[in-house]
Amino acid sequence: MKTLAETGEDALIERLVALVPRASGEGCGPGDDCAVVDNGGAFLGLLKTDALVEGVHFLMSAEARQVGWKALARVVSDFAAMGGEPEHFLVTLALPGGMKVKWIEDFYRGMGDCMARYGGVLAGGETCRVPDGSAAVISIAATGRVLRGTEVLRSGGKAGDSLWVTGRLGGSLAGRHLTFLPRMEEGKWLAAQGCVTAMMDLSDGLAKDLPRLARASGCGYALETDLLPRNVGSTVAQALGDGEDFELLFSTRGEKDLLGKWREKFPAVELTRIGRLLTAGKGAPLDGGWDHFG
Amino acid sequence: MKTLAETGEDALIERLVALVPRASGEGCGPGDDCAVVDNGGAFLGLLKTDALVEGVHFLMSAEARQVGWKALARVVSDFAAMGGEPEHFLVTLALPGGMKVKWIEDFYRGMGDCMARYGGVLAGGETCRVPDGSAAVISIAATGRVLRGTEVLRSGGKAGDSLWVTGRLGGSLAGRHLTFLPRMEEGKWLAAQGCVTAMMDLSDGLAKDLPRLARASGCGYALETDLLPRNVGSTVAQALGDGEDFELLFSTRGEKDLLGKWREKFPAVELTRIGRLLTAGKGAPLDGGWDHFG
Repeated sequence: MKTLAETGEDALIERLVALVPRASGEGCGPGDDCAVVDNGGAFLGLLKTDALVEGVHFLMSAEARQVGWKALARVVSDFAAMGGEPEHFLVTLALPGGMKVKWIEDFYRGMGDCMARYGGVLAGGETCRVPDGSAAVISIAATGRVLRGTEVLRSGGKAGDSLWVTGRLGGSLAGRHLTFLPRMEEGKWLAAQGCVTAMMDLSDGLAKDLPRLARASGCGYALETDLLPRNVGSTVAQALGDGEDFELLFSTRGEKDLLGKWREKFPAVELTRIGRLLTAGKGAPLDGGWDHFG
Repeated sequence: MKTLAETGEDALIERLVALVPRASGEGCGPGDDCAVVDNGGAFLGLLKTDALVEGVHFLMSAEARQVGWKALARVVSDFAAMGGEPEHFLVTLALPGGMKVKWIEDFYRGMGDCMARYGGVLAGGETCRVPDGSAAVISIAATGRVLRGTEVLRSGGKAGDSLWVTGRLGGSLAGRHLTFLPRMEEGKWLAAQGCVTAMMDLSDGLAKDLPRLARASGCGYALETDLLPRNVGSTVAQALGDGEDFELLFSTRGEKDLLGKWREKFPAVELTRIGRLLTAGKGAPLDGGWDHFG
């Protein structure tokens, strides 16, 4: 009988979601950065949940305020990847009994820093205890919204579309994974340009995430690895595989001087064309990237 | 410096939520069974998150399908306590790598059983790995809705209101904590009667939860413990303190033959008047009940 460690994350999720009633309709349900919910009105609803595990996503020796920032910013980044923004956060902390209240308070302060910058408010939460010796688990659920008609899914890409990435990749473990700035304004701006066909944020590394975007769009892909924008000191392998970049990966069709407009709007953030989508089955697989069970 | 174990749950939450931007408006934000969100329209939105910890809320030796049922039913019970119903579920599983995929699938089947009976659909989720030896943590976030004008908060009670409880209390650990039926239809029916002033579900035991309802309503309380409806074999102390009854506790004002109407509508479920709300500061404190950090 297979264990969690022997089963790939994506394959497992596909098996699991088939076992329960699912949200239906375009962009609904599991498989994108957020689930899209249509309640009528000018905005579509977005839903997201995200977990941080001690020893995997953060260490107890890290600044609690930075861990709180990261926990919220990861979710904001998912809303950004749909062209949206956060509204309400639900925070679950499963912590050992020996955890200092000061740590928890600083964690909340870090979340507050992120809400103050990117919007969204705390709507509820739970703090419960795990047995001594167990890893702390932080789970953030959130609702958000995106202006109807500007939402960008992972599935809208077509063969021939250009592939782009914001910022630089690689080397997040040096500290950037705790302090990164979600590309929310960038994501909303991109979604409003009308030429972005598919988008996601890079959490598990380009080598894992690009195939996901391509698969969701029913495409293959060609990546020009020598074009990859890399953080100082990062190799191509790190830019592909380190993960936790939280930059936006997206495809475009019919873009007119996107780079020129971008540089005017976001002069401090790089934008790089890194390849294109191909017909399904074309293109070489990528090595690396982060599997949550690997 | 204080640790989590030395700090009461309610006191800690009050300190934490003061550190971040909060949802505002009546019934918004932390402190009730669910957070209430007003997006306009005929229904108010409800938000809830709830966690289960291995060794605290379930054992790995329990049937995975029952654990899945319980995980969802706890959240449905919170919606019921507002007079509402679930819409979308977000499921986070933080599990050791050695966990059998069969267990996870059965857990999902149990959640599916609950969705099939009470409504709501899966909108997304995450499955991630905790280090070996760590307790598994299950976090369920959900959105729901309640017909505008029928929502019942914890805070609407007044001195003189009657206190009631559905079903019977105590002895949940014998197995009922895994198989209970959330009082959703009952909650919606009660909310529609117009006489229910405050309501919550009993998750931590009447001794812990009744003071919460009374405090939220700015009241004291008098409980007639000899009237408490007890499960077979349960003592008064167990009915007060075992927790995980998932019955509804509510207060009423101006009710007209509530018991008669209830018996006609729900002949299989008991309804018992157990006391009344008093002016603040009156009434004796209760011993027992479940503190998540105790």
